Amino acid sequence: MRGFARSEYEARLKQAQDLMAAHGLSALLLTTEAEIRYFTGFLTRFWESPSRPWYLVLPAAGLPIAVIPSIGAALMGQTWVSDIRTWRAPVPMDDGVSLLTDTLNEVAGAGRIGLPSGPETYLRTPQDDWQRITAGLKGTVVSDGGITARLRAVKSDAEIAKIETACTIAGRAFARVPQIAQQGRALSAVFRDFQGLLLAEGADWVPYLAGGAGPDGYGDVISPASDQPLKGGDVLMLDTGAVFDGYFCDYDRNFAVGPASQVARDAHARLIDAVDAAADIARPGTTAAQVFHAMDKIVTGGAGGSDAGRLGHGLGMQLTEGLSLIASDHTVLAPGMVITLEPGIDTGNGRMMVHEEDIAITETGCRFLSPRADRALVPLT
Amino acid sequence: MRGFARSEYEARLKQAQDLMAAHGLSALLLTTEAEIRYFTGFLTRFWESPSRPWYLVLPAAGLPIAVIPSIGAALMGQTWVSDIRTWRAPVPMDDGVSLLTDTLNEVAGAGRIGLPSGPETYLRTPQDDWQRITAGLKGTVVSDGGITARLRAVKSDAEIAKIETACTIAGRAFARVPQIAQQGRALSAVFRDFQGLLLAEGADWVPYLAGGAGPDGYGDVISPASDQPLKGGDVLMLDTGAVFDGYFCDYDRNFAVGPASQVARDAHARLIDAVDAAADIARPGTTAAQVFHAMDKIVTGGAGGSDAGRLGHGLGMQLTEGLSLIASDHTVLAPGMVITLEPGIDTGNGRMMVHEEDIAITETGCRFLSPRADRALVPLT
Repeated sequence: MRGFARSEYEARLKQAQDLMAAHGLSALLLTTEAEIRYFTGFLTRFWESPSRPWYLVLPAAGLPIAVIPSIGAALMGQTWVSDIRTWRAPVPMDDGVSLLTDTLNEVAGAGRIGLPSGPETYLRTPQDDWQRITAGLKGTVVSDGGITARLRAVKSDAEIAKIETACTIAGRAFARVPQIAQQGRALSAVFRDFQGLLLAEGADWVPYLAGGAGPDGYGDVISPASDQPLKGGDVLMLDTGAVFDGYFCDYDRNFAVGPASQVARDAHARLIDAVDAAADIARPGTTAAQVFHAMDKIVTGGAGGSDAGRLGHGLGMQLTEGLSLIASDHTVLAPGMVITLEPGIDTGNGRMMVHEEDIAITETGCRFLSPRADRALVPLT
Repeated sequence: MRGFARSEYEARLKQAQDLMAAHGLSALLLTTEAEIRYFTGFLTRFWESPSRPWYLVLPAAGLPIAVIPSIGAALMGQTWVSDIRTWRAPVPMDDGVSLLTDTLNEVAGAGRIGLPSGPETYLRTPQDDWQRITAGLKGTVVSDGGITARLRAVKSDAEIAKIETACTIAGRAFARVPQIAQQGRALSAVFRDFQGLLLAEGADWVPYLAGGAGPDGYGDVISPASDQPLKGGDVLMLDTGAVFDGYFCDYDRNFAVGPASQVARDAHARLIDAVDAAADIARPGTTAAQVFHAMDKIVTGGAGGSDAGRLGHGLGMQLTEGLSLIASDHTVLAPGMVITLEPGIDTGNGRMMVHEEDIAITETGCRFLSPRADRALVPLT
């Protein structure tokens, strides 16, 4: 099924309003894609254009108010939102500034207006406009206290089903990599074709693909592909964030181009062991830090991390969202959380290998959403 | 060729520093993908992850300083930037806050620090972090006076060549649409396959695809595809922003599924006439508003616009950037600017048709980067 039942949005709004009451907020102001979509279902790739600001205002009671460019009115009109206020953006002189200011004053009066302000958040409004907006407010802008992030961290069954669909699609594409990747093929051609496989297998779009190839691993896991041809002995890694109905998968696979070195084979087996160790303890009550240490012990011998900065993260409407698997994140896992397990190993000479899987936390443990990889590297010819 | 010569980055930096001097800025602080890439060449899809802040500091004199997560050090090390300061992000307690604050104090002292603050800009830093950063600064944060946007608006020949390559790739994909779109095929399947064609024809990735189908046009130009099958008499529109080496094309094509109505055929011919009228006057010295009026006269009879809000925009490292073709934008066209011409016509019953082409402003006029469409709709079976 595409989208969500209206009851799901009603539940999200009620949870938000309960937390808003606890934080003494008269309104919540949202400006970014995932935040606005979470409460409305407004799904479009038009966010790729930075030209127009978009706003959603949640009142302390009652339904959400969309304050948006008129180009989005028809699509927003198909969501459950009925109070849609528009202006003909872009209007450099007043790009929604007065319409938003009036709406916030109407909704919040002299009260406190919550704005997502913690990790991963940003205000998608030009600074010049923001100064004019806040200057016109009767109320005060304060942090939302992490309300939005907290709600998004725990997924409904319907959300998990979408993430699992994205994972399944990527699994079918990964299974077909031997068709597109062989010795002599340029990495850039493999990247191009792999995105095509993801689409052919059912991805709506492919916002993220990274990877690398080299003997005993790769130097980097965030680079675009070079035109370098695959060579015998290389380890090829492909890491994708493909989207189904607005939800991401985020996992990778490692392939051996011809016979891989002992170093690479051992490293891969150890990465799988690290994922297994994490999955063994990933359940309600375990902390993000504990999951980190279970993997770090295996991949660094307990050094406490590496330059990648973390060994996994939350996943959902964004490629990465919410908790980090690091020593200092003491978030307690809860049923409905979806996280990636992403251990990495330094294989020497500036090279590394990384493996990643996606899991959902259940009532009693965890469940793999990505099809689990074998300890052995997937062979390519 | 991939990337740019070092001399291109040196020229961009010099232009920025000249303008910084004119604005009395001791440093320029950049936080977003396109801004940082413009001055460094740092190209990665990793920006899809919102978890880590990234910073670039341009000093009043001397080379750029990257203040970035350690996960990006290897890739940034391949650019011309040599002063790369990293921390092991994410670190919730201090996610680059002290490293950036120290760097800005070192570079700018008690001076003025420019931050992009005008239309289309945002600060990609959590509000909580930003408060701590500004609290620790000896200097003052002010608007960058539009320096960054102004520089980016005028493209070098090398930049225009990349946009033209993206346009050429999309042109080959559009020419193959009859292979993938026929009566009875779901719009969602057409979207999936068209992204595959763009990749097959050489796009690095496809950040944007929108479109619609219906008799006499479509209700909306920003929606994702529905599973509705194409029907005889429908007009199908596909609008894509495909990327080559970090630069976008952004244009569309309209197709007639079986014979189109007279309304649709007339509207399409009029859209082409509007593009022609705009291209006739698009040259150095013409304003964005004049180009708007040339098209608006043809598509609305001079009503002054519609709910789409504009009839074209700048194009380059982002799907949309810079000027808007609206009545109130008096930006003067200059050689090296790249813009889209994007007239739309209301065809009644809540439906519309839109056509879009990409042009570069030359010394004497303009040059089409997209292969010009015919006045007749492209027929599909």
